Amino acid sequence: MSRYWSKLVHSLTPYVPGEQPKINNLIKLNTNENPYGPGPKVIDALQKEAADTLRLYPDPNSDSLKQAIAEIHGLNINQVFVGNGSDEVLAHVFNALLKHDMPILFPDITYSFYPVYCGLYEIEFEEVPLTDSFEINVEDYFKENGGIIFPNPNAPTGRLLDLNEIERLLQQNSNSVVVIDEAYIDFGGKSAVSLVKLYPHLLVTHTLSKGRSLAGLRVGYAVGHPDLIDALHRVKDSFNSYPLDRFAQAGAIAALQDQVHFEENCHRVIKTRESLVVSLEKMGFEVLPSGANFIFTTHSKYDAEFLAGKLREHLIIIRHFKKPLRIAQYLRITIGTNEECQSLINALNSIL
Amino acid sequence: MSRYWSKLVHSLTPYVPGEQPKINNLIKLNTNENPYGPGPKVIDALQKEAADTLRLYPDPNSDSLKQAIAEIHGLNINQVFVGNGSDEVLAHVFNALLKHDMPILFPDITYSFYPVYCGLYEIEFEEVPLTDSFEINVEDYFKENGGIIFPNPNAPTGRLLDLNEIERLLQQNSNSVVVIDEAYIDFGGKSAVSLVKLYPHLLVTHTLSKGRSLAGLRVGYAVGHPDLIDALHRVKDSFNSYPLDRFAQAGAIAALQDQVHFEENCHRVIKTRESLVVSLEKMGFEVLPSGANFIFTTHSKYDAEFLAGKLREHLIIIRHFKKPLRIAQYLRITIGTNEECQSLINALNSIL
Repeated sequence: MSRYWSKLVHSLTPYVPGEQPKINNLIKLNTNENPYGPGPKVIDALQKEAADTLRLYPDPNSDSLKQAIAEIHGLNINQVFVGNGSDEVLAHVFNALLKHDMPILFPDITYSFYPVYCGLYEIEFEEVPLTDSFEINVEDYFKENGGIIFPNPNAPTGRLLDLNEIERLLQQNSNSVVVIDEAYIDFGGKSAVSLVKLYPHLLVTHTLSKGRSLAGLRVGYAVGHPDLIDALHRVKDSFNSYPLDRFAQAGAIAALQDQVHFEENCHRVIKTRESLVVSLEKMGFEVLPSGANFIFTTHSKYDAEFLAGKLREHLIIIRHFKKPLRIAQYLRITIGTNEECQSLINALNSIL
Repeated sequence: MSRYWSKLVHSLTPYVPGEQPKINNLIKLNTNENPYGPGPKVIDALQKEAADTLRLYPDPNSDSLKQAIAEIHGLNINQVFVGNGSDEVLAHVFNALLKHDMPILFPDITYSFYPVYCGLYEIEFEEVPLTDSFEINVEDYFKENGGIIFPNPNAPTGRLLDLNEIERLLQQNSNSVVVIDEAYIDFGGKSAVSLVKLYPHLLVTHTLSKGRSLAGLRVGYAVGHPDLIDALHRVKDSFNSYPLDRFAQAGAIAALQDQVHFEENCHRVIKTRESLVVSLEKMGFEVLPSGANFIFTTHSKYDAEFLAGKLREHLIIIRHFKKPLRIAQYLRITIGTNEECQSLINALNSIL
């Protein structure tokens, strides 16, 4: 606290990301990283960037990267915005498209960065409760609002919303922007990008941190109507001209062009998820249906925080959220390799 | 323009960075990049990052990088903030430390991103005219204000302000933050970092894009009292947890630890600057004294825009600012290699 701080700073409650421990030999199932790394084409492309040309600025507009994204989705380059991770993309989205007179709507249980962005940009919001089965009911959003945002699949529940339901929401809600945050869409969900051409108020955000195995590179993007994209560029170019360095642009392009490696990785994660769910259910865990690279699970006899602490003693870290209270008995577990998930099961067997 | 835009978006006038042309064979003297690339130790460190570990998030706090910066300046890690280029650092500075009831002060001729940040964060500002010789007179800033910011050396003039003058300003102005933007300090200036321990309202920003030859990597930092740094972290952690990717952190650490390569590069640039000034003066140019890796120059007989256009025909690009009118007859020329500067002189000889 200091008298030199802007007024806003005093009121902020910053986001706390999942721990990035500096200890080796941990089984890290806490931040939804991909257990399988990027492919050799990505590594090659990145190695080429380690060169004298680093003395030069990167392309401030990331045009080649936008082109690669546009091609994947069958869109034009003016329908694409890129940023330093989807967190930066989302920050600009809140400032450029979600700040209006009415409060914005998002689920009461969702990505906990959303209320933080609202704090940063002084945006009013209303949390819409998930159903008792932790599902999004789009009809709960059929009311006046300054914008709507939720992840699909939702985090930390992993529950997927059907594309028809998203379309029904878009039809009922055309006076404000609807943002679908598809950070985890690559693990079995159907993307709303196919609806971008039909609905000028739909914005879909993606990250390369999960399905594309590049959390260490910080690349995310948004696709939508050129007017929405234009707003994001105006804010971005008033904030930082060059948010994507030469590695981020080159690595992301290579990753987007290697569809085979990407799909193989996602498929492996989905298969492991399915067998992990079976094992956990055998041990008395209840697991929410997941369309993500993590699962959300609870045990009727064991306290969630106790289990998370015990697993840590076994050098396995998973994520436990104390708040909101509705999920205090749940654990979010990232899908690791088959070996990592087997270690998790073994540890749980010895704990229970 | 769209009804979906937040109100703010309509009023923004984004920053326009210097052109990053996609044509080869251009002599690029327009964006103050270093003509000499990073050293082999940096390249090695970067190549090691092109690995499977890219699937994992980087350290959100960039602790090792902050430690490397703290060591160079003899400070503690809690006196250091890092960001995605000094542009991102400055954006957070405007939001966290320069938004108060009184207008902030900066020179009328200076880094043109400052008024853009003010637009983004709705900060009032007052432009303080440079003297007739394009110098900052600190006494012009001895008045009530919400904060003070200027680059030293100033851009695009290149003129350096004596450290004693900065200290005099800090003594007279203790009710608001004074930000010294030292993007170009490595080319002959004396850094105000030495004053950080004495003045709790001084913040000094640096970039690795110029002296450290890493414009392509996007790393900048700020040093100051822990309270000021704390404010920056609060804003950063409400915006984007992981702005520095694995390459940016590793490359920056290696660059900061290779003082010899850095000093050699800066020394070469300074030597070339000195001989370029002599050549230009012989041709009738007036050149402002420069403490930067660029010079700011005017010719009594030739129109600046005409010269910039003619040089472009010779495949040499430099920067010309049409506004403000006071500098419309000036050209900003980045110091290139000796060969590039000789090509510039040859081209000018054939034009004049």
